[in-house]
Amino acid sequence: MSTPPPSAKSQTRMVEVRTKILKQNDLVARALRERFQRHGVYVVSLVSSPGAGKTLFLEQTLSRLRTQCRVAALVGDLATDNDAARLARAMVPVKQIVTGTVCHLEAQMVEEALADWNLDDLDILFVENVGNLVCPASYDLGEDLRLVLFSVTEGEDKPRKYPTIFHTADLAVISKIELAAAVEFDLEAARQSIHAVRPGMPILELSAKTGQGMEAWLNFLETRRAAGTH
Amino acid sequence: MSTPPPSAKSQTRMVEVRTKILKQNDLVARALRERFQRHGVYVVSLVSSPGAGKTLFLEQTLSRLRTQCRVAALVGDLATDNDAARLARAMVPVKQIVTGTVCHLEAQMVEEALADWNLDDLDILFVENVGNLVCPASYDLGEDLRLVLFSVTEGEDKPRKYPTIFHTADLAVISKIELAAAVEFDLEAARQSIHAVRPGMPILELSAKTGQGMEAWLNFLETRRAAGTH
Repeated sequence: MSTPPPSAKSQTRMVEVRTKILKQNDLVARALRERFQRHGVYVVSLVSSPGAGKTLFLEQTLSRLRTQCRVAALVGDLATDNDAARLARAMVPVKQIVTGTVCHLEAQMVEEALADWNLDDLDILFVENVGNLVCPASYDLGEDLRLVLFSVTEGEDKPRKYPTIFHTADLAVISKIELAAAVEFDLEAARQSIHAVRPGMPILELSAKTGQGMEAWLNFLETRRAAGTH
Repeated sequence: MSTPPPSAKSQTRMVEVRTKILKQNDLVARALRERFQRHGVYVVSLVSSPGAGKTLFLEQTLSRLRTQCRVAALVGDLATDNDAARLARAMVPVKQIVTGTVCHLEAQMVEEALADWNLDDLDILFVENVGNLVCPASYDLGEDLRLVLFSVTEGEDKPRKYPTIFHTADLAVISKIELAAAVEFDLEAARQSIHAVRPGMPILELSAKTGQGMEAWLNFLETRRAAGTH
């Protein structure tokens, strides 16, 4: 066996550079957060695996909110503007952020996407991250509330297997509960799995398809927004 | 607005360091591939989102293969050895690779995990990556065959939204087809989405739960293994 020696030096350098990028991201995120506060915009970010139902959930949320307040959304993806096209049906301003090969959104991308929007025209901004349960965890986007979604089809043990994102999120949403019976999903086991990682984390179960649980979610959002209003 | 200037310098440095790491990974992967060839081990890697059904698929594959040839598996996760525990039921050697915060497997991790296994005792090695449809795409693990799985619950447009992994994989597996009707999955649209990204890519549809399509998958594997036998 003659494999090259472990690339310890490069790995160390990678960690150093990554630490620096995260630090710069935190600075941009902090500036964004202050800017959102100044303009009275409440910001909610969504993180999940690909296909956990973020976009339908967001579409339903936007449709229900748009008669009550001024909402808009930024949506991140590696490629395509499929999500922006879908969300446009909710009749609110939507902008796609195409990340190329980058596996997460960064504060700088959010800032650039907002360049030509007037924040005074907004009450709530939603930011849908790239579908990825790992990398987005490390990047603050200046949001007030971070949601992590996982669908009943993904299995009850996801929180234990992807703990970091559950540590950094404020609310866990179990999505697609209309499929719970079909996939024999054990809700109690899922709740235990979430609370094993993050004791006391608020959990909502919902179906964006049937509407079940959407009212509770909007109430949760309104309560948090009222409490956190700048 | 006074956010810090764009961190162009750090970003460039990040890309440089990442390029170096990928290059080193490729070297380790090449050495691994040569080693696998020397010992006559055919290596199959699996990539998908969290919860697309990699582990059940692998469990069923191992159970069916173990009477015909000598199989083993490495499984990657950020945390927990849940998957190794599940796969142990298939009565084959299984080892968990816990990556911590790393969002993908690297060739070096595979090499280290194999340190105390005798490759002469193996015919097929399966390597299940961390659940992530983005980052694993860039890391060669020395495998002969790379599978990308996506489940019917994730939606038909996933290949267009995560093209890189489809470009680097050899076979697309559409999993959980027993749920296709329940989620109104459009198989033809999914096939078109895959072939829009990667014309001619082989596609298998299957259900590890009901067994549908497993025979076709094992035939595919056997044909490829026979053709690629070292």
